[in-house]
Amino acid sequence: MFKAEIKSETLKGLVYIVSTLVDEVKFTISPEQMSLKAIDPAHVAMIEINVGAKAFVSYEATDSEIGLDLDKVKSVLKLAGPSDNIVMEHDEAQGRLIFRIGNITRRMSLVDTSSMNDPKVPQINLSASVQVGIDQLQKGIRAAESISDHIALEADPEGFELSCEGDTDMANLRVPVAELKGLKADTKVSSLYPLDYFSNIVKAIPAGTVVDVQLDNDYPVKLLFKLADGEADVCYFLAPRIESE
Amino acid sequence: MFKAEIKSETLKGLVYIVSTLVDEVKFTISPEQMSLKAIDPAHVAMIEINVGAKAFVSYEATDSEIGLDLDKVKSVLKLAGPSDNIVMEHDEAQGRLIFRIGNITRRMSLVDTSSMNDPKVPQINLSASVQVGIDQLQKGIRAAESISDHIALEADPEGFELSCEGDTDMANLRVPVAELKGLKADTKVSSLYPLDYFSNIVKAIPAGTVVDVQLDNDYPVKLLFKLADGEADVCYFLAPRIESE
Amino acid sequence: MFKAEIKSETLKGLVYIVSTLVDEVKFTISPEQMSLKAIDPAHVAMIEINVGAKAFVSYEATDSEIGLDLDKVKSVLKLAGPSDNIVMEHDEAQGRLIFRIGNITRRMSLVDTSSMNDPKVPQINLSASVQVGIDQLQKGIRAAESISDHIALEADPEGFELSCEGDTDMANLRVPVAELKGLKADTKVSSLYPLDYFSNIVKAIPAGTVVDVQLDNDYPVKLLFKLADGEADVCYFLAPRIESE
Repeated sequence: MFKAEIKSETLKGLVYIVSTLVDEVKFTISPEQMSLKAIDPAHVAMIEINVGAKAFVSYEATDSEIGLDLDKVKSVLKLAGPSDNIVMEHDEAQGRLIFRIGNITRRMSLVDTSSMNDPKVPQINLSASVQVGIDQLQKGIRAAESISDHIALEADPEGFELSCEGDTDMANLRVPVAELKGLKADTKVSSLYPLDYFSNIVKAIPAGTVVDVQLDNDYPVKLLFKLADGEADVCYFLAPRIESE
Repeated sequence: MFKAEIKSETLKGLVYIVSTLVDEVKFTISPEQMSLKAIDPAHVAMIEINVGAKAFVSYEATDSEIGLDLDKVKSVLKLAGPSDNIVMEHDEAQGRLIFRIGNITRRMSLVDTSSMNDPKVPQINLSASVQVGIDQLQKGIRAAESISDHIALEADPEGFELSCEGDTDMANLRVPVAELKGLKADTKVSSLYPLDYFSNIVKAIPAGTVVDVQLDNDYPVKLLFKLADGEADVCYFLAPRIESE
Repeated sequence: MFKAEIKSETLKGLVYIVSTLVDEVKFTISPEQMSLKAIDPAHVAMIEINVGAKAFVSYEATDSEIGLDLDKVKSVLKLAGPSDNIVMEHDEAQGRLIFRIGNITRRMSLVDTSSMNDPKVPQINLSASVQVGIDQLQKGIRAAESISDHIALEADPEGFELSCEGDTDMANLRVPVAELKGLKADTKVSSLYPLDYFSNIVKAIPAGTVVDVQLDNDYPVKLLFKLADGEADVCYFLAPRIESE
């Protein structure tokens, strides 16, 4: 059983984040929260999201699973104005999720979740941690585009840096510690990541969000941030590109 | 002889409605009004428009016919700002229509109307009639898109409904009588229509327009509405899709 | 040696004008100004721009040459907001131009200028001269589009005219002397020009600019205008199309 009402903007934020990685997703529903774990087909990036009951206008659920086609959900989101609420109700008999927006009713067939296994979230400790406004990351990505397929993230005791080095050209954004919301880096650490993945997730994060970027040398980067007025936790992992020597 | 001045927004509204069905059109001009009848090449929909002399800023005409290429007229409309007036004058000697917008003059060759016969407008009585704001129809269409190629329109004594049923998914917009501008339906009637035609005409109708939707079981739908501050009458017919059993 | 700071809007204006003709350009730099001469690959149009040191926020240079790929420069311009300044510095050792916008650094490899010869700017006297707002020229071009590939420019003692004549249709914009900023034409002169070139340059000129259009019978047209608050002079030549008899 699952019946919940949510602000359209909150659902939109969540769906756009997840759809940077997968087309279909399994939501795991409990009385306290809705959660998901997803890994992209190439196994380069992974996402884990926990949306607490308080992120919803109203929320009533027992343990269940719902598989959704995210493109269909996006088409429903387009029917809602920014101030609309969306009511979702699981029709278990018919295997559908029912969306209601004002006087619109949209019944959506569910995706079979039996073959959708939860990916294992890696337990890793990363030595550096940077709290940075998403606008800075977005600026860094725009500068990097068309120079190379990879972006280097670097933290040192004085600041945080995104840089991109092509055969002849180079772009670099340095955020000094004074413009960061927080920085922990005992020494300089850096890793190289695929620009397309990093760019997709950074562009999907809403303006104004502060992201906790956890880094180390040649390790995955972990992006931690909150959505839904702090009631949803997102954890995103992206595998590094290890340069062979 | 035909010489008239019209607000660019009024002409734009008329042209966009007609061009949902045909690329070329014959205007029949008399001292009292400009009118047209057009049917799409597949004979699925038909439109009749009568534009009274009062829809124009100034209007002077004798009986005549003018055939126009609507894409060319649209390119002229793009030259006019929303507050511009457009002067049209028939140059009978040259077989052209002359448009003037400010200090721009545009001479347009006419389309031969000798083979353009007026379609016969069907005389049918439809039992139900619904007066509904175009914004509701537009919302219903957006919900229906990507679910099926057909849309069902339904009227009953309690309200009006647009619905679309695909193999697995369904979308529905119900407008209760309280949100309608008027409703006459003794019993429930409904018909199925091609979504693309219905969508094209509904999207071309200006915001704020109230449409009189006349319906019956497995009959054409008739959409009646006014443009040009009430001085132009539009009547649009769309053939039903009869489901074979 | 070259180091200069410039408003992003000023650099944008200059780059968009030049890139209507060429993809790569050689800037000739002196202590007093930055200048360029460029001719399009088909040798139909030519441009000469002189940007005085006062067009810059700060400017420090010795004689040098810098070859730039304009698409790359446009990608840098996209990183700057309208109120941002852009610092440019020539790294002679590395053969790069370094751009700085806030905390972004962009190192750009230079284009080899050894094979880029300065085109010879023609010395011609044109008998008519019209000072006209760029908005009028832009309106005339929009009216001409899709009618013909050529546009006629005409000046006579009473006004200035753009006209375009196709096989069946015609568009014309006449600006009477009262709506011009200046007019010198003893007799009527007119020439025909390729619409695509004329359209590209006219669309790239910023709103509000007054252009000095110099004309004669079957001669190139010369467009003279200022950018950068009057501190940059642009001279654009476009070859006429001589109609064979």
